[in-house]
Amino acid sequence: MTEGGRTAAVMAAIRGRIAARGLEAGERLPSIRGLAAAMGVSPSTVVEAYERLAADGAVRSRPGSGFYAAAAAPPPTLAEIGPRLDRAVDPLWVSRQSLDGEPEIPKPGCGWLPAEWMPLAPLRRAARALAKAEDAVLTDYGATRGPLALRRLLARQFAEEGLGIGPDRILLTGSGTQAIDLICRLLVRPGDVVLVDDPCYFNFQALLRAHRAEVVGVPYTEAGPDPERFAQAAAAHRPRLYVTNSALHNPTGATLSPRIAHRILNAAAAHDVGIVEDDIFAPFEPEPSPRLAALDGLERVIRIGSFSKTLSASIRCGYVAARPEWIEALIDLQVATSFGGVSPVAAELVAGAVGDGAYRKHVEALRRRLARARREAAGRLADLGIRPWLMPRGGFYLWCSLPDERDAAAVARAALREGVVLAPGDVFSVSRTASQRMRFNVAQMGDARVMPVLKRALQAPDA
Amino acid sequence: MTEGGRTAAVMAAIRGRIAARGLEAGERLPSIRGLAAAMGVSPSTVVEAYERLAADGAVRSRPGSGFYAAAAAPPPTLAEIGPRLDRAVDPLWVSRQSLDGEPEIPKPGCGWLPAEWMPLAPLRRAARALAKAEDAVLTDYGATRGPLALRRLLARQFAEEGLGIGPDRILLTGSGTQAIDLICRLLVRPGDVVLVDDPCYFNFQALLRAHRAEVVGVPYTEAGPDPERFAQAAAAHRPRLYVTNSALHNPTGATLSPRIAHRILNAAAAHDVGIVEDDIFAPFEPEPSPRLAALDGLERVIRIGSFSKTLSASIRCGYVAARPEWIEALIDLQVATSFGGVSPVAAELVAGAVGDGAYRKHVEALRRRLARARREAAGRLADLGIRPWLMPRGGFYLWCSLPDERDAAAVARAALREGVVLAPGDVFSVSRTASQRMRFNVAQMGDARVMPVLKRALQAPDA
Repeated sequence: MTEGGRTAAVMAAIRGRIAARGLEAGERLPSIRGLAAAMGVSPSTVVEAYERLAADGAVRSRPGSGFYAAAAAPPPTLAEIGPRLDRAVDPLWVSRQSLDGEPEIPKPGCGWLPAEWMPLAPLRRAARALAKAEDAVLTDYGATRGPLALRRLLARQFAEEGLGIGPDRILLTGSGTQAIDLICRLLVRPGDVVLVDDPCYFNFQALLRAHRAEVVGVPYTEAGPDPERFAQAAAAHRPRLYVTNSALHNPTGATLSPRIAHRILNAAAAHDVGIVEDDIFAPFEPEPSPRLAALDGLERVIRIGSFSKTLSASIRCGYVAARPEWIEALIDLQVATSFGGVSPVAAELVAGAVGDGAYRKHVEALRRRLARARREAAGRLADLGIRPWLMPRGGFYLWCSLPDERDAAAVARAALREGVVLAPGDVFSVSRTASQRMRFNVAQMGDARVMPVLKRALQAPDA
Repeated sequence: MTEGGRTAAVMAAIRGRIAARGLEAGERLPSIRGLAAAMGVSPSTVVEAYERLAADGAVRSRPGSGFYAAAAAPPPTLAEIGPRLDRAVDPLWVSRQSLDGEPEIPKPGCGWLPAEWMPLAPLRRAARALAKAEDAVLTDYGATRGPLALRRLLARQFAEEGLGIGPDRILLTGSGTQAIDLICRLLVRPGDVVLVDDPCYFNFQALLRAHRAEVVGVPYTEAGPDPERFAQAAAAHRPRLYVTNSALHNPTGATLSPRIAHRILNAAAAHDVGIVEDDIFAPFEPEPSPRLAALDGLERVIRIGSFSKTLSASIRCGYVAARPEWIEALIDLQVATSFGGVSPVAAELVAGAVGDGAYRKHVEALRRRLARARREAAGRLADLGIRPWLMPRGGFYLWCSLPDERDAAAVARAALREGVVLAPGDVFSVSRTASQRMRFNVAQMGDARVMPVLKRALQAPDA
């Protein structure tokens, strides 16, 4: 790790403790020598980090006395909304470590591809075309549903998936997460039960907690959610919604079977449960798998997605396809809460890049590259006794078991001390029953530091 | 109006009735001849509009029988959250008519400048530079606070306003509205009272209603909110927040006086009220006016804003400056609800354009152009007996009284039938005491249709 990376790691560790209330306002920071030894860095690195934190206002320096967490009245925080969790397995922990880690830090725990795997040529061409776009594209708010060209492109994509709807049934949003957030604003009231898969994408939990929903997990099998348990949960809890990924489930990489899809839809109909189907990983499938949205015809299923995984996470753009009257109500909510949805500039860039002939070829090449990376990563993980729960048909995740009942949160903490961000299993698990599992992003394991750090972290004393 | 514009106006009218529940699912649409006569269009225009609505799924066509609103179970809508309002003076009405009206329709009721008034050359140069940006700028999520370059630029701007804070106290968001939305998620619980100005920017009401806050208005004077009434409301209702614009208040164009600013801050401190200061119009001021944020030093005031008015509303980017621990909590909420805030691509475009030497000159020229447009519009409105409440120091709004106690909602409905979008006073007024007022955007009154339509609308039978 570079000196800059080490300083950033120390800063992140202190910020994390303050955010998790491990360091209360006014409390003295760890001693410079002590923290240097604990993190395996030099004392001067810790001094540099503390001084940068002081410049940022996160800590206060008292000459001759040392460094203290900045004094401030505590605000209500998201952590207070739900049960207080160990920050290391808090669903927000992985997000913030992944997003705010220095760019050069390896992040096998993150949920995206390295920049050089992305379709850069179509993106740069789309940016050049943007410079010549009509005036209004560059300056105006745009229509509440988002630009028609991109909604038409999505309607064609949906038709290929067996879902025939017009572009007026599609609402563009600021991101895939914002699409779910809008749906929750419409359909979920504080205290309502929402079903998720166990395990599921960790941010579903953070999002639902922000809506003060009661989150109930349904065990996920190799062919989709356990249909018996789903039906039981639907009957017992009368949930408003079920939020899931069908194509290449996150984190497991599993594929929904037609039989389970049918049973889930029947159980949802019997208990009047709405379904949000997030198909963000669909382009990585070798061939399309069963979709709840297509089976249901968008009656109770709401299809959401984005372009963050295959095109760009920097150009924020998500979408919702749903019943017409839900779209109308979602538009009102989107105007009220963000005064419009997708940025027209973002939609122009997305439509330009996705419509570029090179994009489709890029995605095909990406599938082959990911298949190779998956095999290689599985092999290297097997050398450490780490085994995938199943071998996914596509995508970039491997959901693995650690050897010897190692505690994944402790392994993740140990790896972070060496500047590697991992994704411990319990952040994905509502029931917290995945403490010996870990999700690996096979596209983010090329850095030579990853395997040695992982090997050492598995031997950490508390692991 | 063009044929396309007329068709769009009919479609908008029907969609509006369906959204407002003026047409229930399964109900027959108005007769073609009847609606054609009422809207002053040909029957074939109505047929075209109905067929396009049928193609979109908003209505159903039954051969030999006519057109019906599409059948569908009603979802809970935003309108159900607060009191049900006349859709023509619903705060969302102006937003949706402004955003979704055909581009060629004149919109003196909208809240933005025409595209040709915006700094197009800096925007196009920023797009060309984007095409050559580093890979990660084009593809990655980016840091949770948003890119540092733009936060540094904002910190310099704040320093000019007398607010000395580091870039870590600034969080970039998807829009100015999203900034307020995040703050409400953090600080406002359903049933909490929030104070706003009466009149105020109509979307504050829609946003607060989406949070199920109880919105209480404080009468706005020519020098800011009435300080006595503010103190009374703070004591009586124990509000969590007060949301306001200080620099060039929307819709009045008034300027906060130093004396009132000081009194408001004292009353807020006495009753522990947080303040959101939205200074989105600040760049249009000829010289800076008193700011609550600068007086308070960002203790209880949260400063928010965006670039939508002076640079681009298409590139969505807003910001929050606040206490460090509030910023930390807002980051968690922003990750949970949109997985990151501003698009890094958007931040790159904004930083490029705002940092362009031509941008500052453009804003200076814009101030002069707006001063001329303000004088001209005031003169033409005076010919119809429409008078501004005060003459603003800057910006593009004139908050006016209609002559002869005309009803602004009826005038707006009549103007919309002729394809002109106006902003009737009551959409800005929590107490609904502005029914004879109207907000005009002086930059959107150049179209030759505006004054004749306005003149006729003032004579509408129900006005």
